[in-house]
Amino acid sequence: MERHIRYDAASRSLILLDQRYLPTREEDFVCRNTDDIVTALQVMVVRGAPAIGVTAAWGCVLAAYETAESGMETWRPVLDGLIERIANARPTAVNLRWAVERMRAAWHSLGRADLATLITYWTNEAKRIHRDDIAINRRMGEHGAELIDDGDAVMTHCNAGALATAGYGTALGVIRGAVEAGKNITVIANETRPFLQGARLTAFELHEDGIPVTVACDNACGLLMKRGMVQKVVVGADRIAANGDAANKIGTYSVALLAREHGIPFYVAAPLSTIDRETPDGDHIPIENRTPTEVTHVGATQITPDGVPVFNFAFDVTPAHLIAGIVTEMGVLRAPYRESIAEAFRKAGL
Amino acid sequence: MERHIRYDAASRSLILLDQRYLPTREEDFVCRNTDDIVTALQVMVVRGAPAIGVTAAWGCVLAAYETAESGMETWRPVLDGLIERIANARPTAVNLRWAVERMRAAWHSLGRADLATLITYWTNEAKRIHRDDIAINRRMGEHGAELIDDGDAVMTHCNAGALATAGYGTALGVIRGAVEAGKNITVIANETRPFLQGARLTAFELHEDGIPVTVACDNACGLLMKRGMVQKVVVGADRIAANGDAANKIGTYSVALLAREHGIPFYVAAPLSTIDRETPDGDHIPIENRTPTEVTHVGATQITPDGVPVFNFAFDVTPAHLIAGIVTEMGVLRAPYRESIAEAFRKAGL
Repeated sequence: MERHIRYDAASRSLILLDQRYLPTREEDFVCRNTDDIVTALQVMVVRGAPAIGVTAAWGCVLAAYETAESGMETWRPVLDGLIERIANARPTAVNLRWAVERMRAAWHSLGRADLATLITYWTNEAKRIHRDDIAINRRMGEHGAELIDDGDAVMTHCNAGALATAGYGTALGVIRGAVEAGKNITVIANETRPFLQGARLTAFELHEDGIPVTVACDNACGLLMKRGMVQKVVVGADRIAANGDAANKIGTYSVALLAREHGIPFYVAAPLSTIDRETPDGDHIPIENRTPTEVTHVGATQITPDGVPVFNFAFDVTPAHLIAGIVTEMGVLRAPYRESIAEAFRKAGL
Repeated sequence: MERHIRYDAASRSLILLDQRYLPTREEDFVCRNTDDIVTALQVMVVRGAPAIGVTAAWGCVLAAYETAESGMETWRPVLDGLIERIANARPTAVNLRWAVERMRAAWHSLGRADLATLITYWTNEAKRIHRDDIAINRRMGEHGAELIDDGDAVMTHCNAGALATAGYGTALGVIRGAVEAGKNITVIANETRPFLQGARLTAFELHEDGIPVTVACDNACGLLMKRGMVQKVVVGADRIAANGDAANKIGTYSVALLAREHGIPFYVAAPLSTIDRETPDGDHIPIENRTPTEVTHVGATQITPDGVPVFNFAFDVTPAHLIAGIVTEMGVLRAPYRESIAEAFRKAGL
């Protein structure tokens, strides 16, 4: 599935499938300027670290058009301010900052080029980031497929699928890779409260692809593992520190601990753009605290009493020692991660 | 809170606060016969092992009236069939069978008494079971209070409160006991998907009592523990085996494992009527598999795609070795549980 992030050059707009309404309603959210992009990121019209990065890249293009329309002579600081707003829309996924910095580097490489030239250049750069993301995911899928055995039931948490990327997915890319390699596998999608990315999005895209998927409440994880109903766990990541600690959707840390307790290998699948070598370890990854209403309400249904506070930490950190391998486009990295990550970056020329 | 299970002698009906609609709507569900009781148990108008037992006891009284109204000469097998239906309404909580067997024993103790005599006798017996449950919970609260320290944040899963009993609660009875002993404590209520007993019921009754409570999604458990935000865990139980293995709401096993990982004491609070010495260990406790719609929908909101199956195991089993103590009306039992349970039953004259 790649229809969920589409740039329309004619209307100068980024058309996003609004993931808040899946799986029951397919509705587009059209971004025409920086405000729209920031809103789409913050309310999670689009989510998932790589998809956030791709959206941010296109957001820079829209910001450039917006700057051009303002007609100001001193357009550089204006544009810089706009793309900085995009980079700060959400704190945890490093791909957001990564994409904006890559666009900024492209801009700087042009020297004193005018805005029209920059727009052309950026449009191509965003296209490249968009296409590369899908290609990278396919490579990750090929590498990761080797970790999955025929007949496995693979548990995943949140949605690290096509919808979380430009297409194909990271964790679900590994699953798709295994299926394409001819393996019969089934997937258990943890529903992933509060935003229900597993129930709504992972189930949606795997079902659409004909890959057998069953949804489980997050708290069934221990029981399913104890009963031998889970052979592997594969999840995505929002930011991986230099030592291999991985921030991902809230609940991932619990799944990893339960997997270790039951002797089940736990893998993280993420492109190198999700690895932030500036972040030494998991303690340095900022964890987003989101609006209470995501917890207090499901659709129109209020599930907590008025006046009762809730926790809504959006992510947690899985320490590297619980991770059996990190699937990247450069292959499957193994512990010690500081070394294997450095080596992967070196090989990738980064 | 004791208004949620009321027997009205004048109308020969059991009036239950319909827990499906809490916390936003307080609506009664009136039971007039066996069918009503079985429905109330199965759709979870009332839930929680001790509350199920109390409801079943009153259900026997309604079954006796129903039998009397049928006017049949051979009323004994008719009544026996009705109370057997009640005993089989749900499989996991042993208090259901326990209450019906206690009513049956009372019946047998009357010899060849007529139905009118039995109804009078049973009404008193149900009243006793009802009152005893509250008294037992208060004793458990006193014993359990000693386990909780001033300043503790206590995590609980599901609702083992007043609403899960005739009043005061088991796990929440321990919390109330600690509060009544003058300790400042706060509670973290895991929301407890899919039926959301934590978000809807535990938050409701603690907030009503002015005990500070915060709701967390089930999958935040690991993060909250890792951050040092949880000092104790106290949960209820639906059935405790002779060796101390405890079946409780799905997710309890995961919480117990995460508690051990973080060095947090994990306690179970349950009356002796929840301990089934006929069940040797947790592997022999039947786990109820409930309707998919509890998982696929929240209120009117569909959260999974059409055609995608779900798991809805209602309970899991926490092995005895993860349990730091079992709070009963006879005191806090410690491992080895086979011995301490046998001793508690002996002391209680059971």
